[in-house]
Amino acid sequence: MMQGAFLPGNSTVELRDVPVPEPGHGEVLLKMKASTICGSDIRCIYHQHLGKGPEGYQGVVAGHEPSGQIVKAGPGCRRFGVGDRVIVYHISGCGVCNDCRRGYMISCTSEKYRRAYGWQRDGGMAEYLLAEEKDLIYLPGQLSYADGAQVACGFGTVYEGLQKIGISGDHAVLITGLGPLGLATAALSRKLGARRIIGIDIVPERIRLARDLGICDEAIASGPDNVTEVRALTGGVGVERAVDCSANDAARATAIRATRKWGKIVFLGEGGRVEFNPSPDIIHDQKTIYGSWVTSTWLMEELVERLVAWNLHPQELITHRFALDTASDAYELMASGKCGKVAVCFDDELKQ
Amino acid sequence: MMQGAFLPGNSTVELRDVPVPEPGHGEVLLKMKASTICGSDIRCIYHQHLGKGPEGYQGVVAGHEPSGQIVKAGPGCRRFGVGDRVIVYHISGCGVCNDCRRGYMISCTSEKYRRAYGWQRDGGMAEYLLAEEKDLIYLPGQLSYADGAQVACGFGTVYEGLQKIGISGDHAVLITGLGPLGLATAALSRKLGARRIIGIDIVPERIRLARDLGICDEAIASGPDNVTEVRALTGGVGVERAVDCSANDAARATAIRATRKWGKIVFLGEGGRVEFNPSPDIIHDQKTIYGSWVTSTWLMEELVERLVAWNLHPQELITHRFALDTASDAYELMASGKCGKVAVCFDDELKQ
Amino acid sequence: MMQGAFLPGNSTVELRDVPVPEPGHGEVLLKMKASTICGSDIRCIYHQHLGKGPEGYQGVVAGHEPSGQIVKAGPGCRRFGVGDRVIVYHISGCGVCNDCRRGYMISCTSEKYRRAYGWQRDGGMAEYLLAEEKDLIYLPGQLSYADGAQVACGFGTVYEGLQKIGISGDHAVLITGLGPLGLATAALSRKLGARRIIGIDIVPERIRLARDLGICDEAIASGPDNVTEVRALTGGVGVERAVDCSANDAARATAIRATRKWGKIVFLGEGGRVEFNPSPDIIHDQKTIYGSWVTSTWLMEELVERLVAWNLHPQELITHRFALDTASDAYELMASGKCGKVAVCFDDELKQ
Amino acid sequence: MMQGAFLPGNSTVELRDVPVPEPGHGEVLLKMKASTICGSDIRCIYHQHLGKGPEGYQGVVAGHEPSGQIVKAGPGCRRFGVGDRVIVYHISGCGVCNDCRRGYMISCTSEKYRRAYGWQRDGGMAEYLLAEEKDLIYLPGQLSYADGAQVACGFGTVYEGLQKIGISGDHAVLITGLGPLGLATAALSRKLGARRIIGIDIVPERIRLARDLGICDEAIASGPDNVTEVRALTGGVGVERAVDCSANDAARATAIRATRKWGKIVFLGEGGRVEFNPSPDIIHDQKTIYGSWVTSTWLMEELVERLVAWNLHPQELITHRFALDTASDAYELMASGKCGKVAVCFDDELKQ
Repeated sequence: MMQGAFLPGNSTVELRDVPVPEPGHGEVLLKMKASTICGSDIRCIYHQHLGKGPEGYQGVVAGHEPSGQIVKAGPGCRRFGVGDRVIVYHISGCGVCNDCRRGYMISCTSEKYRRAYGWQRDGGMAEYLLAEEKDLIYLPGQLSYADGAQVACGFGTVYEGLQKIGISGDHAVLITGLGPLGLATAALSRKLGARRIIGIDIVPERIRLARDLGICDEAIASGPDNVTEVRALTGGVGVERAVDCSANDAARATAIRATRKWGKIVFLGEGGRVEFNPSPDIIHDQKTIYGSWVTSTWLMEELVERLVAWNLHPQELITHRFALDTASDAYELMASGKCGKVAVCFDDELKQ
Repeated sequence: MMQGAFLPGNSTVELRDVPVPEPGHGEVLLKMKASTICGSDIRCIYHQHLGKGPEGYQGVVAGHEPSGQIVKAGPGCRRFGVGDRVIVYHISGCGVCNDCRRGYMISCTSEKYRRAYGWQRDGGMAEYLLAEEKDLIYLPGQLSYADGAQVACGFGTVYEGLQKIGISGDHAVLITGLGPLGLATAALSRKLGARRIIGIDIVPERIRLARDLGICDEAIASGPDNVTEVRALTGGVGVERAVDCSANDAARATAIRATRKWGKIVFLGEGGRVEFNPSPDIIHDQKTIYGSWVTSTWLMEELVERLVAWNLHPQELITHRFALDTASDAYELMASGKCGKVAVCFDDELKQ
Repeated sequence: MMQGAFLPGNSTVELRDVPVPEPGHGEVLLKMKASTICGSDIRCIYHQHLGKGPEGYQGVVAGHEPSGQIVKAGPGCRRFGVGDRVIVYHISGCGVCNDCRRGYMISCTSEKYRRAYGWQRDGGMAEYLLAEEKDLIYLPGQLSYADGAQVACGFGTVYEGLQKIGISGDHAVLITGLGPLGLATAALSRKLGARRIIGIDIVPERIRLARDLGICDEAIASGPDNVTEVRALTGGVGVERAVDCSANDAARATAIRATRKWGKIVFLGEGGRVEFNPSPDIIHDQKTIYGSWVTSTWLMEELVERLVAWNLHPQELITHRFALDTASDAYELMASGKCGKVAVCFDDELKQ
Repeated sequence: MMQGAFLPGNSTVELRDVPVPEPGHGEVLLKMKASTICGSDIRCIYHQHLGKGPEGYQGVVAGHEPSGQIVKAGPGCRRFGVGDRVIVYHISGCGVCNDCRRGYMISCTSEKYRRAYGWQRDGGMAEYLLAEEKDLIYLPGQLSYADGAQVACGFGTVYEGLQKIGISGDHAVLITGLGPLGLATAALSRKLGARRIIGIDIVPERIRLARDLGICDEAIASGPDNVTEVRALTGGVGVERAVDCSANDAARATAIRATRKWGKIVFLGEGGRVEFNPSPDIIHDQKTIYGSWVTSTWLMEELVERLVAWNLHPQELITHRFALDTASDAYELMASGKCGKVAVCFDDELKQ
């Protein structure tokens, strides 16, 4: 038996004893090492079980950002084996629908087989995790398990969005929303070469954090003058690229309007609505707005390769680490918002 | 002296005698042959002078979709000469700002030199027109002047938008709004290879026209079930490409929502607003929305080359032709909406 | 036991009795329906076993363009089941390396698991075929098995190349080499909207066939004046897109040189070399040359969807059908070159 | 009268007195400040008049990389005026053909009006230069005239090529040929974010210079093992992007072969030939080869904006400056190859 954390939906965490699973064909058993908490875990599960369908929580072990080490491999595994350090792509798709074949298991169209770790199948908040080999991303020795957990969801999602709009030294980048997704955007934009990074948030602590980490060149408070402010910071013309990580209506409009002629905007933040005036906002300036959802397994692998080359450690955005038996405190802190990223860690990973 | 049509802004047309202009350096004098009326002429000038800045009418000869023949060329002309048949790109930019250098005189940034024909400098509703050589597009003998007038604004705008999203036999195309712009979209999509063309409009006559011309494969009435209807017409998945020509909020949202996973939408229709829900509408289906404004001089030239190769005659969308001295009737008819495209024509072009 | 065709490498075919395989985890057993012969089968196996590594023939049942119906499904199959009509993507990759995750099993990097059907694992020239579920492409009822066999290799390869360069009504297309790959290029270019299709080949029969099928607008004999001839057929400017299906040095240079300013060329034909002069051939005309290899499983699925929508039947390029017990005649005919595509068919498929 | 340098084609420079020109309509007179020597000046004019047509030297004042200050403006100038600091795009096109309308005056199709500065019309090696306003690029105060001269030809050409293939932190970049063009490629790639820059040259001094300037991360000697060496420097996979600045056959093949799967190569170096084996070299690795020629006026303007934002000063590649009356020494040094970039400078620019 092993301990696992469950979320009954009343802002508490329950630790229960569950059997250690046995890997079947094409499956592996991971000794968990790091499992970070995502904003969506708080929003849709912790306080109340809000989601339905692909977002419904089915009473499983929580945690959809897992990283660990393979301790047992079932028959039929072809690439990964015992001892390998791995990240788990957070959705297990059927593997054979068109979306899965593109690597985008996030949008697997199989009602029967699409199951998110920590939502519809057991996730990373336990001592061991059963995963399918096809969901694994190799984690090289230069990265920690905590780095890996960060890649599984947030950094992967950001990297996909940045690939869609393209980021290089040609671009000043605006980020609306400086939560974990926004900070990941800033960190990756820096490594891609962005020549200036401007962040906007409503929470003073986040603005301060972005400045203190040196992760944004400018971090300003959300307000009605943001478009004017961003233009003033960019020689009057606006940014070449904007990334919305806020899901806030006004911030999305700001992202669009503060973008320069011929510029590109990508929406990553989930939920809510947006409203704008096409003629002045995108038509007359020939702008493009991209929707982008999570990423593919193969691009997540490329991101891992890049992180090593860049010596970029996503774990630097983790401000607090907890052991599994204090998972309750971890979720409570994350729910308070008075933190960066929060992780439940195991073994040596806890000590870092 | 020659006659020219002016729009005092009270839903009438005034014919006044004005001097025949003399071409200066880099300028030519055109004998006008065809000059079509654009929806924006009615909306912003004919009924009332609504526009400001680049959209302000400065009491000039009307008509921003001109096509004619050069009868006199000033000094410094390098490519075009007397006898050449030409289209006039409808905005005369400074020619040396960054936008003009890209060929997009539409967004010329010179407050002093940017002047739209028929709005801030004399347009095509007169016997002669003074144009700058750099604004001319060569009109080959296989195309009529009425074809040319159609290219000057509408067909050029559509072609640009279709280039941005790419249209081929891989794509079913949805067009929201079947006015002149929408019909041009259908006609060009057909020649680009679109495998199915679906139109939506609110006006029964337009729906009937689109069907009668065979220009759309399906033409349906605007309504709350449009997304469902379009999906039903496309095997349940939606169209690969959508083009909004309506500027209507609900139609724009339909264009977005009826588009398939990984699909592209372009907004061409001017004015109004749009509102949607990014997560289901563009993020989860990885869609992209393009704003597109008019076109460049060089792409307009390419379009002319294509029209000849395709044997496509934009004049087929013209339902009524008037002589200059009945321009009043032309504008009145166009304002009534009970027509396709309306042209003021001269000489032989009037007889076709 | 069942019959299977083997290629000993001395220009003969051997029919041997082999056991009917039993599908394991994630595997299916297909009743074969159609299995076409590829030029590479003749070049690298039939006459002599030339290939090494990924191109080495390991004494298996031949045939890498198989299409059939599932008669038995092993455990762990998630999408396909008994009764489903399917195409087999012709390379079985490991499924979990980066290339496989992109869907490009053709370039699977696993030395152990990458096995081409008909080369390193039993292929389609037998009554039954054992395939992995992940290698299957759904074949809808509107397409025949012979259509499907054509997709498995040739049409899939062509569609990938055409997606890379983009083909629509904007483009005149040059095809160098009018063998099966070239004819597939012509057929798909037509459906994508190409406004003019020009083919070049050295074999008079192929030129005649391309003309008779109406699949090319122009088909000309290979020769030193090809560039001039293509320019003459395109208003002096050359084609916007070129596709080399010949693998011939001179033809490849022709494809490059007959392409217009800003145009795109893709190389599909395998083997040989190319030589050109970058300044006049690609630099001064801002041209781009793409290499393209086979395709992904997910794009092959999209192609199948398109074929149905276009009512395009790849089997029309098949000129001869043989039963398995006359496979020897099939390979002999294909080796002679005096034919279009040659298929070994089973059951009802043989009668068509 | 003023002094101007002419190149009789016998490896000498002649200084002659010529009249100071008077600007006509749309023309300006520049007081020259900096005029750099391009490799093509040496290769095609200085030693012997080799070029024909667009590359023919017509006995004019030499120098096609000019930068200066406007001292007189003819009638009809719309953007630039007396006192403005400017770069001269090195080809004066007709301004109204399709290529000029795209901004690519380099490929102006007008036989009559296309004239390169320093080749078919007077260039920058004189005290004053007559230029057309449409050929001018604004030079902001943060950049020197020597910076500007560098942009007029080399840096502009490189920036265009890098835009075609896209350079960011995702890419290791290989540069074959470390002359002025190669060094400019390295400097711009660095600012675009390239995560690793590897240079190859045959001349030890150039390799040393690239290392000393810190402009390449690795600079290695040209040789038969270059592909292996580049792979060893990139974890065995090769570079994501390669730029040929050598025009050498073997180096071009190295650029192709040392590029990673799915990678992009651009050819900038002029002349010569290339030979490779499409299957292993580009088809099986899905690579793309771009030809790229000079740039457009509008992209050159964007580059200038970027240089200011990046605080990048192209003049740092200039190793020697000469006054006009010692232009003979300047050309002799450049012809010797024992130098970086060589400039003829005027006034204060000479002292820097």
